[in-house]
Amino acid sequence: MKVSIIGTTGYGGGELFRILHHHPVFTVQSVHTTRDETPLSDEFPHLNGITNLKLEPIDTEEIAKHSNIVFIAAPSGVSSKLVPAFMETGIQIIDLSGDLRLTDGEVYRKWYKHEPVESRLVEKAVYGLSEWNKEKIIGAKLIANPGCYPTATLLGLAPVVKAGLIDPNIIIIDAKSGASGAGRSVAKSLLFSEINENFRIYKVNEHQHIPEIEQQLNLWNAEVSPITFNTHLLPITRGIMATIHVKLTENMSTDRLIELYKDQYLRSPFVRIRQKGNFPSVKEVSGSNYCDIGLHVDERTGRLTIVSVIDNLMKGAAGQAVQNANLMNGLNEKTGLEFVPIYP
Amino acid sequence: MKVSIIGTTGYGGGELFRILHHHPVFTVQSVHTTRDETPLSDEFPHLNGITNLKLEPIDTEEIAKHSNIVFIAAPSGVSSKLVPAFMETGIQIIDLSGDLRLTDGEVYRKWYKHEPVESRLVEKAVYGLSEWNKEKIIGAKLIANPGCYPTATLLGLAPVVKAGLIDPNIIIIDAKSGASGAGRSVAKSLLFSEINENFRIYKVNEHQHIPEIEQQLNLWNAEVSPITFNTHLLPITRGIMATIHVKLTENMSTDRLIELYKDQYLRSPFVRIRQKGNFPSVKEVSGSNYCDIGLHVDERTGRLTIVSVIDNLMKGAAGQAVQNANLMNGLNEKTGLEFVPIYP
Amino acid sequence: MKVSIIGTTGYGGGELFRILHHHPVFTVQSVHTTRDETPLSDEFPHLNGITNLKLEPIDTEEIAKHSNIVFIAAPSGVSSKLVPAFMETGIQIIDLSGDLRLTDGEVYRKWYKHEPVESRLVEKAVYGLSEWNKEKIIGAKLIANPGCYPTATLLGLAPVVKAGLIDPNIIIIDAKSGASGAGRSVAKSLLFSEINENFRIYKVNEHQHIPEIEQQLNLWNAEVSPITFNTHLLPITRGIMATIHVKLTENMSTDRLIELYKDQYLRSPFVRIRQKGNFPSVKEVSGSNYCDIGLHVDERTGRLTIVSVIDNLMKGAAGQAVQNANLMNGLNEKTGLEFVPIYP
Amino acid sequence: MKVSIIGTTGYGGGELFRILHHHPVFTVQSVHTTRDETPLSDEFPHLNGITNLKLEPIDTEEIAKHSNIVFIAAPSGVSSKLVPAFMETGIQIIDLSGDLRLTDGEVYRKWYKHEPVESRLVEKAVYGLSEWNKEKIIGAKLIANPGCYPTATLLGLAPVVKAGLIDPNIIIIDAKSGASGAGRSVAKSLLFSEINENFRIYKVNEHQHIPEIEQQLNLWNAEVSPITFNTHLLPITRGIMATIHVKLTENMSTDRLIELYKDQYLRSPFVRIRQKGNFPSVKEVSGSNYCDIGLHVDERTGRLTIVSVIDNLMKGAAGQAVQNANLMNGLNEKTGLEFVPIYP
Repeated sequence: MKVSIIGTTGYGGGELFRILHHHPVFTVQSVHTTRDETPLSDEFPHLNGITNLKLEPIDTEEIAKHSNIVFIAAPSGVSSKLVPAFMETGIQIIDLSGDLRLTDGEVYRKWYKHEPVESRLVEKAVYGLSEWNKEKIIGAKLIANPGCYPTATLLGLAPVVKAGLIDPNIIIIDAKSGASGAGRSVAKSLLFSEINENFRIYKVNEHQHIPEIEQQLNLWNAEVSPITFNTHLLPITRGIMATIHVKLTENMSTDRLIELYKDQYLRSPFVRIRQKGNFPSVKEVSGSNYCDIGLHVDERTGRLTIVSVIDNLMKGAAGQAVQNANLMNGLNEKTGLEFVPIYP
Repeated sequence: MKVSIIGTTGYGGGELFRILHHHPVFTVQSVHTTRDETPLSDEFPHLNGITNLKLEPIDTEEIAKHSNIVFIAAPSGVSSKLVPAFMETGIQIIDLSGDLRLTDGEVYRKWYKHEPVESRLVEKAVYGLSEWNKEKIIGAKLIANPGCYPTATLLGLAPVVKAGLIDPNIIIIDAKSGASGAGRSVAKSLLFSEINENFRIYKVNEHQHIPEIEQQLNLWNAEVSPITFNTHLLPITRGIMATIHVKLTENMSTDRLIELYKDQYLRSPFVRIRQKGNFPSVKEVSGSNYCDIGLHVDERTGRLTIVSVIDNLMKGAAGQAVQNANLMNGLNEKTGLEFVPIYP
Repeated sequence: MKVSIIGTTGYGGGELFRILHHHPVFTVQSVHTTRDETPLSDEFPHLNGITNLKLEPIDTEEIAKHSNIVFIAAPSGVSSKLVPAFMETGIQIIDLSGDLRLTDGEVYRKWYKHEPVESRLVEKAVYGLSEWNKEKIIGAKLIANPGCYPTATLLGLAPVVKAGLIDPNIIIIDAKSGASGAGRSVAKSLLFSEINENFRIYKVNEHQHIPEIEQQLNLWNAEVSPITFNTHLLPITRGIMATIHVKLTENMSTDRLIELYKDQYLRSPFVRIRQKGNFPSVKEVSGSNYCDIGLHVDERTGRLTIVSVIDNLMKGAAGQAVQNANLMNGLNEKTGLEFVPIYP
Repeated sequence: MKVSIIGTTGYGGGELFRILHHHPVFTVQSVHTTRDETPLSDEFPHLNGITNLKLEPIDTEEIAKHSNIVFIAAPSGVSSKLVPAFMETGIQIIDLSGDLRLTDGEVYRKWYKHEPVESRLVEKAVYGLSEWNKEKIIGAKLIANPGCYPTATLLGLAPVVKAGLIDPNIIIIDAKSGASGAGRSVAKSLLFSEINENFRIYKVNEHQHIPEIEQQLNLWNAEVSPITFNTHLLPITRGIMATIHVKLTENMSTDRLIELYKDQYLRSPFVRIRQKGNFPSVKEVSGSNYCDIGLHVDERTGRLTIVSVIDNLMKGAAGQAVQNANLMNGLNEKTGLEFVPIYP
């Protein structure tokens, strides 16, 4: 099967290329950007000698002629403009932006400060949280690929929220991300000297991933009320950790919760539940599609600490996108994604 | 006035030297360690040409003869063994370890896994949270210098806890620290390749600073129940951020809270309250004795986010120790501590 | 084919596992260390769910019974003690230490400060610089896998040294390495806080890789006199850059030299020569087996600057070891090694 | 005395402010930039509560009315446009750009790709390498403050070049700098994710500091021929190391050279010569005005390795600028500059 990548000069697009280049079923047929036609390896010198593909302008009809799947790794507000034209061609679409994730246009407008896309488009999109939406993803034509923070957060919360084991009014998520999550766009706040040997909080209580998380939590459990979700910038390139603080509604041991999680993710090859007393660090999933989860019940407070880590460019973006493409096409979801984490 | 430093070859001891070397009133008379007698600049080559002091063994009587103040920057479990002998000499003592901070010996034993010191000693120690214990510190002979995490956390929480503005049952602190907080001791988990490009949680719900924070919160407000406090290791050398999530008991605007904090810290030259919409990052206090605090009320949840940052070696250790020494001796608390943060 | 790894708990051993786990021909049969029998994933939590292998003691006969190849990733001075016993069993041996690389025992003694191994052993070892020793490696039974610095340096120098294009009396190599090159052993100088935001030179003119480089250069060109080779520690985990300063003996353009290099490495899939004006950075080969080389003739001085970068754990250790194992067994040298570099 | 700073929103300007804010003789009277009038602490939040100064437009006459000294920390090509107007006012000028350093306009044009300033201006400028030009600096009105790389390099080379102890035809400098040297301007290549966990060479044999170094070396020793000088970008914020490879013309021991250096820098409080076997790392001068130098003669090659480190924002820019201002005004050169390096 042939695939095309749009937005290949960003970090998410580059990571899609890294995965797809060795995928045993998919072949990268073309790479696209809005810029001039240059070899992809001019933008990404690490691809010298690996590919001779040239960046091409975005011609939806041309792309649909030669490819079966298109991955759109463009910024929110941009990708939604491309989707309708692709929809008409019948090509499979995986959109990595936030444009198709929120079912309520007004919510989108409020958090993204852009005009929402038509609701008929959003309705056709399947939210691509691979582990929990598998049935719908299989056979879907249009995927709204989840955000990086929502992926780490939702995989961490799903078992206890679905089972109604926590107080739905007190969900506090303290999230941290590496700088590649901000993309390759140029801004003073993203300069090396501003981030290195630093740590900062940003978009305090205003991150656009909040409604995405709440929408899914409410689908699982309608009683969940607005969450507290804060995001920090780590002086690392890759990696997200969501440290989640919730209140158990009944007495449960760490052991029993770990069992519950292992059970719930029994058929999820990319979710790894840690043993008691063991917590994942972000480097332990770097370069891989894993989401690692650690759990601890604090008996003093009756609160549960959930630690969920992913590589934001992999399970948080390109990796999950390919996982979804696998599912859409009847492949084993692991196909082409079995990277051992790079350590150290 | 003459001062001596014990444990000068660690990071806290080195920072004490950096501050005291240019202090206009205090002079470093001697530096001590348990190791062989070598020039201090052999341990810390950055001190070449700055000092000719040699490391000396710890002889409490000798030290008391030539110094007015002794700073003990030794590990918990060690420094408590030195304090009794120093007490007899009448020298002013500032202990940077956790040994004298907890008034309940059983609590100490539980969290530190060491034998507690005699309660008569602990009773004589004044908890040196400079901003809030000023009266007792002035004229004290023995200071239990606060831990790094407690300093950032307590300065961030004090105004709302004292005023009873938050739900005392839901205090959730998500704390992050640079690696120098772990000291200069050698362990695999502290190797560069294990921490670099990584981020991990540690001592989940078990950090020994938890009882120190709770003890002080309860002195301010007896209704405070056990807190949730988790600690993470940042891939930076210096800096702590405590992100504090609490629930307001009544409707209050961010503006009013900022006013309250500015008011409460009006006479605290090292606490800086940020303007609305502005949050501190750890590098913005690096190398200085400042604690910077940002505030934001989330109207969706009624929760307040408090962001408190310090340099763990300065306000979190050596800086506050010198601030306390200033207060003990009737000096302006800023004396010798007005470092402009190093940026970038 | 079955393989065993000795020293699997170090960074080199871990990287061998990462490569070999997905190798289409080799299967990791057993992993060994001198420590107690524990699951490998206890030492390397990133391998949770990926392997159930347990660390085993080193029993050479047992290993030879179940494996065809043994990779020895033990420190210099240790691995040489294992080689003789393995030799008797007939198993293929790839030794990643420095013990078998130097043909002159006295030279080994001088630079390594250890007792050299018997010369009959060293004589049987083939120096595994894959690109230049291919003929001997094919069919070899015992490989002395090159050091990380020598690999980057020799690949950078080979074409001009062999062709006699540079003054053999002035070869100056200024090399820089990430911290994983120092291994996972515990030392104060390798603590995060000592390396982070720092850069230092070490083993000035005394690095044990000097004689290894000189030995090979002299095989290519007997006129080469002692080199200047200095090593620095970069505050990164992976990556080596050798910046090589040499003097051209005749006028040559950058273009012609690039042609020469491309020609010399035409059949070397892991060596990539950059276009004029383009120089490799260490991240552009990270996680891959590439050696990227950039060239520039300074017309003002008649000197040539050669920039050679590798991932020290890949082409500088585990990657080249597997490349050699491929060659020894008649496989395409790229088998199992076509990792796209991780960027960013 | 009153001073003004131009270009205060860059890293060099910020560092000037940090030094001058506590200078016992100089007072920062005004800070200037080409941008809108905002509080300086909006640009640099670490200055909250430390200064209320507002950024002002650049009005040379106004500045000269209220200040005795102006520091110009503007980019090359910009500052030269300001100097003539300031010259007319009689104010003391310290220019941190490269515009006034090269006496030959054609050389400037070639390396800087800008139009050179009038030669009459350059002739009036004193090259402010404090340690070696002290006599001319005292009483000067216009200082061309040296570049960061030239400072580290020239201080490292001066004793042997002046004494004619090295082959003047083979001077090879391999230099490395932290990212703050590139300033606070926004460029893709300066993004965190491009520099972090990376190391790259840049401006290969084409750095504009080359003619500055050669010009001064030739003043010391007319036989010096074109040098090899290459620059690399370190993934750190502050710090430069110049590793200098030269050939001794006669046999000299490391000991004797160290003596020579100590002797030559006897009256230079900011130059520290390391003991034999001891080499400086960049963090050992961080935040301070020191230049630390280590030396080693390689008896195998007859070459001398000189290692010279500075903090690029301090001795490499703002620190040396204030040192020069001290000298110009008859103060002890150490005034306001005795910062103990920040370690770790």
